[in-house]
Amino acid sequence: MQMNEKGKLLVISGPSGAGKSTVIGRLMEMRDDVCFSVSVTTRPPRPTEQEGVDYFFVSPQRFQELAEGGFLLEHAEYVGNRYGTPRGYVEQRMLEGKSVILDIEVQGAGQISRNCPDAITVFILPPSGEELERRLRHRNTDADETIRQRLLQAKRECAEAGKYDYIVINDDPGAAAAEVNAILTAEKCRAADRIKLVTEVLIS
Amino acid sequence: MQMNEKGKLLVISGPSGAGKSTVIGRLMEMRDDVCFSVSVTTRPPRPTEQEGVDYFFVSPQRFQELAEGGFLLEHAEYVGNRYGTPRGYVEQRMLEGKSVILDIEVQGAGQISRNCPDAITVFILPPSGEELERRLRHRNTDADETIRQRLLQAKRECAEAGKYDYIVINDDPGAAAAEVNAILTAEKCRAADRIKLVTEVLIS
Repeated sequence: MQMNEKGKLLVISGPSGAGKSTVIGRLMEMRDDVCFSVSVTTRPPRPTEQEGVDYFFVSPQRFQELAEGGFLLEHAEYVGNRYGTPRGYVEQRMLEGKSVILDIEVQGAGQISRNCPDAITVFILPPSGEELERRLRHRNTDADETIRQRLLQAKRECAEAGKYDYIVINDDPGAAAAEVNAILTAEKCRAADRIKLVTEVLIS
Repeated sequence: MQMNEKGKLLVISGPSGAGKSTVIGRLMEMRDDVCFSVSVTTRPPRPTEQEGVDYFFVSPQRFQELAEGGFLLEHAEYVGNRYGTPRGYVEQRMLEGKSVILDIEVQGAGQISRNCPDAITVFILPPSGEELERRLRHRNTDADETIRQRLLQAKRECAEAGKYDYIVINDDPGAAAAEVNAILTAEKCRAADRIKLVTEVLIS
């Protein structure tokens, strides 16, 4: 790997129950040139949360200004609070050579792709419908009807997988993280990114 | 990695002195889902060479028929003998799930790209012009003028690197092979190749 290469924007998405955060955790143990994005939110900080580490905490007015000004790569509302990905933060880390990982639901990933055509998009797919259901049931104690709705929603989201650059099946989180790791390494070898190194060979 | 995935066609190219064959050797130690292509040639077999292992040995007439019939992915002449890559052999191995590696000079790689748009093309770049010259001098005892011509030719070929999918700098063969390894793993995660696995999740 060359020094001083600009980092990549790596979007990890998939349905609830795919195991996105576990795969990301494993990936972050595998390499030191990646970092996690810090989101902007209108939610008040919890006692243990630190500004700029867990979130950037802003007022609803400020959030609205950021969204309207194009300063967010994507944003969404969740139980009355707004969450977004700050463009400036992400770009700064990329310039420092860090690849920035976004853990994002399927709708947000679509926004990112439109706003950042260079983003690398990876869909984390559960190995089967049965396993997806098992994970959704295991995760919470909701009524059967709620589980059924979540499963339908998750399958609806899986149908979007073909719009991503890559699909990684999360049967085993370590194996899935190894594939994401390879994807990031490969994307850093793209000819378009390395063409300047050719010039160095030609003139030296 | 999923079972029964179709293999890829992986074209490894670059100038003389880039170290293509060393990188390929290392790659083949790293994974068991790759194989090397066997070329067709009009050159007579040497005593130790085996039909179908080292080469497929054919008459000039047969070679011409293969070339005209579109049965060769690329072909070239070298010191009076013709060499080509047999399409059928490559496709059969890919159907068996093996990714087929081609070690090929820059002109041949261009032919492959035109004949197989799905081929993954990797340009192996020497780390610098000085190192390229050192490797070319080390390799043979030719006169300075011959070396100078070879170096010019190699640099001319490096200028083609931007037409490839990926550029891998061969400073250290192990590191370069690890990058090619990641490229192949990543390409096997392409959404277009894995979309059928999504169907399995949706219907199960």
